[in-house]
Amino acid sequence: MQRLSIDLGARSYPILIGPGLLEDGDVLSELVPARDVMVVSNDVVAPLYLARLVRALGDRRVETALLPDGERYKTLETMGRVLDALVAARMNRDACVLALGGGVIGDVAGFAAACYQRGVGYVQVPTTLLAQVDSSVGGKTGVNHPGGKNLVGAFHQPLAVISDTRTLGTLPVRELRAGLAEVIKYGLVADEAFLAWLESNLEQLLALDPPAVEYAVRRCCEMKAAIVAEDEREHGARALLNLGHTFGHAIEAAAGYGEWLHGEAVGVGMLLAADLSHRLGWIGSADVERVRELLQRAGLRVTAPRIGAGRALELMAMDKKVLAGRIRLVLLARIGEGVVSGDYAAEALQQTLSTHFGAAA
Amino acid sequence: MQRLSIDLGARSYPILIGPGLLEDGDVLSELVPARDVMVVSNDVVAPLYLARLVRALGDRRVETALLPDGERYKTLETMGRVLDALVAARMNRDACVLALGGGVIGDVAGFAAACYQRGVGYVQVPTTLLAQVDSSVGGKTGVNHPGGKNLVGAFHQPLAVISDTRTLGTLPVRELRAGLAEVIKYGLVADEAFLAWLESNLEQLLALDPPAVEYAVRRCCEMKAAIVAEDEREHGARALLNLGHTFGHAIEAAAGYGEWLHGEAVGVGMLLAADLSHRLGWIGSADVERVRELLQRAGLRVTAPRIGAGRALELMAMDKKVLAGRIRLVLLARIGEGVVSGDYAAEALQQTLSTHFGAAA
Repeated sequence: MQRLSIDLGARSYPILIGPGLLEDGDVLSELVPARDVMVVSNDVVAPLYLARLVRALGDRRVETALLPDGERYKTLETMGRVLDALVAARMNRDACVLALGGGVIGDVAGFAAACYQRGVGYVQVPTTLLAQVDSSVGGKTGVNHPGGKNLVGAFHQPLAVISDTRTLGTLPVRELRAGLAEVIKYGLVADEAFLAWLESNLEQLLALDPPAVEYAVRRCCEMKAAIVAEDEREHGARALLNLGHTFGHAIEAAAGYGEWLHGEAVGVGMLLAADLSHRLGWIGSADVERVRELLQRAGLRVTAPRIGAGRALELMAMDKKVLAGRIRLVLLARIGEGVVSGDYAAEALQQTLSTHFGAAA
Repeated sequence: MQRLSIDLGARSYPILIGPGLLEDGDVLSELVPARDVMVVSNDVVAPLYLARLVRALGDRRVETALLPDGERYKTLETMGRVLDALVAARMNRDACVLALGGGVIGDVAGFAAACYQRGVGYVQVPTTLLAQVDSSVGGKTGVNHPGGKNLVGAFHQPLAVISDTRTLGTLPVRELRAGLAEVIKYGLVADEAFLAWLESNLEQLLALDPPAVEYAVRRCCEMKAAIVAEDEREHGARALLNLGHTFGHAIEAAAGYGEWLHGEAVGVGMLLAADLSHRLGWIGSADVERVRELLQRAGLRVTAPRIGAGRALELMAMDKKVLAGRIRLVLLARIGEGVVSGDYAAEALQQTLSTHFGAAA
């Protein structure tokens, strides 16, 4: 078992990574301080893990709120259903919400915890690779709006993150691959050595070799913990973790949530960011090919939908990283070093968009 | 014009109190830093003040979201309408929400600002006495849930509070009286001298004598600022400001939101808190009569609805100040000194409830 800590003063919390953790009564005794627990999960994950988790929670009062599975249900309305469950169970301020599932469950349950009685504690028990390496750590919670992804939410740090790596064994391979996109992201923006490790160990990861998985999850969480500790509310460095996300959000929004997995859209988005960085003369064409090749080996998509550059730009502009009308993007100064910039030639962006999304509609 | 400051480190902000402030371009230039402003108001206040405010905002881009008037619309759904307006106007992270109205508008608009893009700034422009002396200051935002008042929300401090005392001139007298309940509250929990001043100046306040109004609003804001600076998230002293609120919330919930004004329910709630404090031997019967008399002189209700002690207790238990199943109440150690306590004889509470709400149903 690996144990990290995310250092945020009074809001610091541990991240535990290892096989079988969600069935470990001692771990849960330590990290879930409440007597009243509301487990939020979905109809895919619950049949697999809910009973084991509830057993491990011992003699606490445990209630459950089960949501339908999928990004399309990451809405204010779904969040309201979690609130309804908390009210119906008459839970009060010392209750704890426990998010058992992937990124959607973590985001919705965390947002509900942020809002219920103006904030109750929650613990993340992520069951997807994407959630274990990224979305469960750092306190970003929220839901989508028809006008854009994650437009509504709160910063609310969990009390703990408990990543049971054994749960990845029941993950559909498409979701495993989508999670790898976020893993690759860390290498691209922050650590070329980790990227090289990924290039050497991709097959082991796809085969869920336990030491490889544990190392990858730990390394990503270490990087995320360092960045979040430095910049909890994303005024600076944290924005680097959005590599590929502004392009990716446009893809997701255009396709309708659910058609593309988040990680798949981010994968293509990272390729576009590399393409633009190359057009700006920051990285070489071989670097772009390196990104493309790794994505392809991971089984990820590398072709954007042909929605047209104009529509893509419009959707990107609605992304919340727009500051005073100028689209700030995460680009690559080199492989292993991301940079947040709104200071690029507009024509270069236009070329990237036209090449990948098709000419402006 | 009075100017106070609420001291919360990086989240400190000014409170301005005086006649004509919402038409004062210089004040708005200083305190509303954004180029894009979303004014949230309702269909009663907007016809009176929106045009003047928009004119005073000068050449900013101003959009408006008008909500129906009344506590019954203080819901997650209404908050969603403000979010829809923000998305439709494509406002981004540097936009500012401006709440023009009473407590409901301030709570809903502030909660929407807390959630939009995980937090944008907002400025309170309260137009009711209750909002000017209490709800606009301190960063509590939120909405009601069918299961209880203010069960959903966020702590989100405004960038400024601009209290134009001239707006009280258009307030229905019933709402003015309801606001006086919160004014009286400050005297009861924190300042007997202020209570005595109120007893001497009640007629001037009801007649909206400008110096009296300005003094009362300033004094309440001073007390609230001191308490909030000490205890922003209500772990301790801030709970004193809930005098009468747990009883009052039960009244509001039983009657259906809108039947009783919040201040009216709080007024009766304060009388019950005084009654219980007397039964515990903390204050004398003359003190209870002093509370009753002041409420009556202010034209406030002093009789609780006959919902039965059992139902009242049930509704109180759902109030979020319940800690681990025990109802903590704000009581009076003496006139001018509130105390938060769960340490009282259950029979005394039972007697208070039976006397005022009727025998248990």
